[in-house]
Amino acid sequence: MKKIAVLGSTGSIGTQTLDVVSRRPEEYEVVGLAAGNNIPLLLEQVRQFRPKWVSAGNAELASRVRAEVPADISVVHGEEGLKQIAGESGANYVVCALVGSLGLTSTLAAIEAGANIGLANKETLVTAGHLVMRRAKEKGVSILPVDSEHSAIFQCLNGESAKTIKRIMLTASGGSFRHLGREQLRNVTVEDALKHPNWSMGAKITIDSATMANKGLEVIEAHWLFDLAYEQIDVILHPESIVHSMVEFVDTSVMAQLGNPDMRVPIQYALTYPERTASPASALDLLQHGSLNFKPMSFERYPCLRLAYEAGRMGGTATTVYNAANEVAVARFLKGDIPFLAIEETIERVLGKHQRVAAPSLEAILETDAWARMEAEAFR
Amino acid sequence: MKKIAVLGSTGSIGTQTLDVVSRRPEEYEVVGLAAGNNIPLLLEQVRQFRPKWVSAGNAELASRVRAEVPADISVVHGEEGLKQIAGESGANYVVCALVGSLGLTSTLAAIEAGANIGLANKETLVTAGHLVMRRAKEKGVSILPVDSEHSAIFQCLNGESAKTIKRIMLTASGGSFRHLGREQLRNVTVEDALKHPNWSMGAKITIDSATMANKGLEVIEAHWLFDLAYEQIDVILHPESIVHSMVEFVDTSVMAQLGNPDMRVPIQYALTYPERTASPASALDLLQHGSLNFKPMSFERYPCLRLAYEAGRMGGTATTVYNAANEVAVARFLKGDIPFLAIEETIERVLGKHQRVAAPSLEAILETDAWARMEAEAFR
Repeated sequence: MKKIAVLGSTGSIGTQTLDVVSRRPEEYEVVGLAAGNNIPLLLEQVRQFRPKWVSAGNAELASRVRAEVPADISVVHGEEGLKQIAGESGANYVVCALVGSLGLTSTLAAIEAGANIGLANKETLVTAGHLVMRRAKEKGVSILPVDSEHSAIFQCLNGESAKTIKRIMLTASGGSFRHLGREQLRNVTVEDALKHPNWSMGAKITIDSATMANKGLEVIEAHWLFDLAYEQIDVILHPESIVHSMVEFVDTSVMAQLGNPDMRVPIQYALTYPERTASPASALDLLQHGSLNFKPMSFERYPCLRLAYEAGRMGGTATTVYNAANEVAVARFLKGDIPFLAIEETIERVLGKHQRVAAPSLEAILETDAWARMEAEAFR
Repeated sequence: MKKIAVLGSTGSIGTQTLDVVSRRPEEYEVVGLAAGNNIPLLLEQVRQFRPKWVSAGNAELASRVRAEVPADISVVHGEEGLKQIAGESGANYVVCALVGSLGLTSTLAAIEAGANIGLANKETLVTAGHLVMRRAKEKGVSILPVDSEHSAIFQCLNGESAKTIKRIMLTASGGSFRHLGREQLRNVTVEDALKHPNWSMGAKITIDSATMANKGLEVIEAHWLFDLAYEQIDVILHPESIVHSMVEFVDTSVMAQLGNPDMRVPIQYALTYPERTASPASALDLLQHGSLNFKPMSFERYPCLRLAYEAGRMGGTATTVYNAANEVAVARFLKGDIPFLAIEETIERVLGKHQRVAAPSLEAILETDAWARMEAEAFR
């Protein structure tokens, strides 16, 4: 029996994780749920799954939860609450579906507790890949990717020897503005940006898809997850989002994982690996699509991707800065505070000002993260 | 060190196998070579690889070989010679690259000797899949597919559990006449038929690609190789021959193997499995192709494929008849004896006259094979 804790249970990945889990009650016990401020949904989840631990975004929200749930449920809150759910709820499998760099400390807590990790939070590896992967190895903990691209790579590597990987190809749909040129991006609205052509996702990741920062984060994440050099990680445009990603091996053979865009498939795979079980997702009908298209990626069109490779190659705290600056810039764009193209400008500017620290400690990372956020808030 | 015997060493698969082997002399020792009547090439191969055993098509050809090679090389001939190379040459890995039903007895001899099999000969499993797979299992022998489609499926199944396969999708280019309708097929010539759009192969298999009998044989072979029901085996048209085949799993995830059409890749994989090693094949450039297309297969356009499913579902000796009738009909077409469309008519007619034997013995299979050949020779 997998004892599951879901961090970010009311978000897009969190709710889909619980959907998957609810279909196989004999295999999963939900022991912990952590959410931010969507208390009505959190309470509904608590009623359905009866976890022993629940966390809300802050003390006030937690007291609202406390008033509504049985006394034998531990109610905690905030970043400390996330760490408690990850490390003290008795979970042997923690799904980290938090958005942003909040995922790092709780993922580390889960690793310390010896739980395997279903990792949907890109920022964890982007900001502290060297610490997380080293500690996971030391503790014998598996980090299973939930992201569709990394899940695809992970599936392509099934039964393969890592040393025979020549390169991986992450596919990118191109996001909501893929048909627009640079000039046309000047005045796009938040509403336009939130219309992703293939995937239904949260706001942050949808904007990140439009800027290609999402793919940039994935490149850095893949670097850590699969222990690859940046030269071994390519990105190609694939408008249909059917081929979720590919691996080219030294014998020129290319393995690809395909499917309809439905996050429940990679979420489920991260839970059931190395097995597969029936899924509620609809089967892929390649004949309905007729053709799958592939186009070269452009760093000129998508500077956020170029900046991700640059930050990745710099290494150390540079990727923390990339992520933090992006996170703040996206939040500011969503608030109407800055225009769309200022997202990439913010990242470039803050990265440019940053004094890189190689192999940083967790403290140095958190310090850099705070600095980069401040800089990004102040930009323009 | 793999001690390799190559049956059919001067053919298309045989020469490519030796090309692969010659690139890693520290890993392979060629102990046996068997060819038909291309004695000059066989002698060249003997000089290069210094096998202990050599076989030629008949006694006369063998005496020509005998005169040219050192006395410590055993020179044998004919079907008995093939069995000796397979079973007595000391090979622990036998590549069966013979064309047609000749492959069966020598493959069985190799299995009896406990050698693993690199199987490029479709007819072995098509005519006697139940005997071959059972005996291979009893002897603990691996049957590794060399065909690009089956190799693709085999690669997609790496690390997977067979019970989670929902279906496989074999891809078919459509062959030399894929742009022609049924009416236009009446007067096509042998020369036209031999122009395969993507693969450079022997004459028999090129004609089989044009009639889709090749895919029919592959469907039956896949049934035995992967222990799948015919309902689990689909064929789709894929003109580019880049996706070599696919597997859909119960979780709706589809794994695909891609590459340029170069038989050295699946040949090498069958030799190096579960490892992969560098290949002389050129890397796949998906951006150069731009798009991959998929179209529905038509049993009306390609009756030879329909007949293969029918024979497969009948089971027993029906697939032996399918294969033997096709083999004779293709030979007659290549000789200019019958027109292109008479290939399918021959198969249908002979299958229709056949009294099926369920779970036949090797003797019953050989008897049926001889009967079907006679009938196919006499047709029209």
